[in-house]
Amino acid sequence: MSNAPHLSLRQTLSGLEFFRRMMSGAVPPPPLVTLMGLRLIDAEEGRVVFAGTAREEFYNGLGVAHGGWAATLLDSALGCAVNSVMPAGRSFTTIELKVNYTRPLRREVGEVRCEGRVVHIGGRTATAEAKVVDADGNVYAHGTTTCIVIERMG
Amino acid sequence: MSNAPHLSLRQTLSGLEFFRRMMSGAVPPPPLVTLMGLRLIDAEEGRVVFAGTAREEFYNGLGVAHGGWAATLLDSALGCAVNSVMPAGRSFTTIELKVNYTRPLRREVGEVRCEGRVVHIGGRTATAEAKVVDADGNVYAHGTTTCIVIERMG
Amino acid sequence: MSNAPHLSLRQTLSGLEFFRRMMSGAVPPPPLVTLMGLRLIDAEEGRVVFAGTAREEFYNGLGVAHGGWAATLLDSALGCAVNSVMPAGRSFTTIELKVNYTRPLRREVGEVRCEGRVVHIGGRTATAEAKVVDADGNVYAHGTTTCIVIERMG
Amino acid sequence: MSNAPHLSLRQTLSGLEFFRRMMSGAVPPPPLVTLMGLRLIDAEEGRVVFAGTAREEFYNGLGVAHGGWAATLLDSALGCAVNSVMPAGRSFTTIELKVNYTRPLRREVGEVRCEGRVVHIGGRTATAEAKVVDADGNVYAHGTTTCIVIERMG
Repeated sequence: MSNAPHLSLRQTLSGLEFFRRMMSGAVPPPPLVTLMGLRLIDAEEGRVVFAGTAREEFYNGLGVAHGGWAATLLDSALGCAVNSVMPAGRSFTTIELKVNYTRPLRREVGEVRCEGRVVHIGGRTATAEAKVVDADGNVYAHGTTTCIVIERMG
Repeated sequence: MSNAPHLSLRQTLSGLEFFRRMMSGAVPPPPLVTLMGLRLIDAEEGRVVFAGTAREEFYNGLGVAHGGWAATLLDSALGCAVNSVMPAGRSFTTIELKVNYTRPLRREVGEVRCEGRVVHIGGRTATAEAKVVDADGNVYAHGTTTCIVIERMG
Repeated sequence: MSNAPHLSLRQTLSGLEFFRRMMSGAVPPPPLVTLMGLRLIDAEEGRVVFAGTAREEFYNGLGVAHGGWAATLLDSALGCAVNSVMPAGRSFTTIELKVNYTRPLRREVGEVRCEGRVVHIGGRTATAEAKVVDADGNVYAHGTTTCIVIERMG
Repeated sequence: MSNAPHLSLRQTLSGLEFFRRMMSGAVPPPPLVTLMGLRLIDAEEGRVVFAGTAREEFYNGLGVAHGGWAATLLDSALGCAVNSVMPAGRSFTTIELKVNYTRPLRREVGEVRCEGRVVHIGGRTATAEAKVVDADGNVYAHGTTTCIVIERMG
């Protein structure tokens, strides 16, 4: 369906095949991912990496990135890490997200990377963890998620 | 400073006076709040309300709002609820955010409101809770936050 | 089964009927609830109350209640709030718990109460929120939970 | 002081020296740690390990360990991981705890270990992550914490 394009594609593609198509440009990223200046740069089974820069359009009034920006980055990496181990026809969606903000994120930090990793995969639920780090390995935010299987797709 | 405009204003304005100026249009909202289509519509001591509509530009690939959109809405309401009880010269920033996603958010839901309320105010830390609800009171997401005082402002 | 006595009873009792039997003494409370000095003191649809005192045997080395004590109190109230709206044959179990510690808990505080309230009930997941308060309404800890239906009981 | 024995010792001992004395038996563990059948079995800078068995006295009514037991185990490992990098005279206390429950914990699982690791150490706040695993590496629960410095000690 046009309203859930990725879900339709995932009927016939595994999560990992799907993310590879997104990285090659054959599948467009989700609208909010583009709006937030984020991009998927790596994916393997159980691990994905997103990257982006905390530009001023993503700031709050304190002169640093709004908490929503890192939350979007973490949520993207966490949800995709879980889906990277799923076969065709089986998708998970996020039911809860926990974020810790450990350092202020500004444009001057440059591009940060967020690596999401699967912690647990069960029949109905899955969990993952992720960290937002700069080129020197400083941690700006980290988080965890719980996902649940989407029973009827498309 | 131009990089932290709200923090400078808060040197001489209480949180509540500051939010009233934002609602009157005298102070612009933070960049990410505008980008996400959100606006502050009510503020009193210990309680603020933001509103917005989950337009398609905020979607993920599943045909619903990306988790980052509700996280931004909740983080805005939670942080502002805490700051709504702060005097001039005293600001708090978010150190952690917890979000539960309870229903899919789509454009068709119409405008949702997010009311943030203070739970605890201490000397160094504060907590708040918030819910995202539609016009019928259905809960789409809810969350909590922990904030910490910003020691040296502006 | 002797290993899951409450789950067996819940095959024929609604959550609320079950909790009423626990309050009357006809059903023993769970072992850890007893060990932690906690007791169920009120239950209605969507809301339960546990009470207890932070005795010294529940302390950490800082001279206050260990975080695990309030976590046990909150987890009990949160899970039971969700099950208080469930019919016979349908039970939920906790998949995640979030706790905020807002004031140190000591024996001198006296008995605290923890009221858990349902926030969302869905077909497969449910959420609840709870606060630990003293007789004056001071908040010592608060939290939220996500629960998931137990598919095959007993 | 007798009410905060560990805090007094930490005036003159680093966190790591303190935990080494606890492992050698020279300092008794906190009361709740003993009550929950837990013990500290390893500590180095930024990493500690607790161990314990989910005996039936720690069960809920579903025939598995109550969520409060794993929460106590995680909270112990997380808080001690943070304090393991602190010098004498500087202690941190937990202000929030997030737990994911991924597998049911029963006595038959045998002894589980919980390794806590520091993620971020700042001037006023610190974060850590921990997992509860069995001898085969299966994850039963995992969590994160935020701690805040205790300004005036013992």
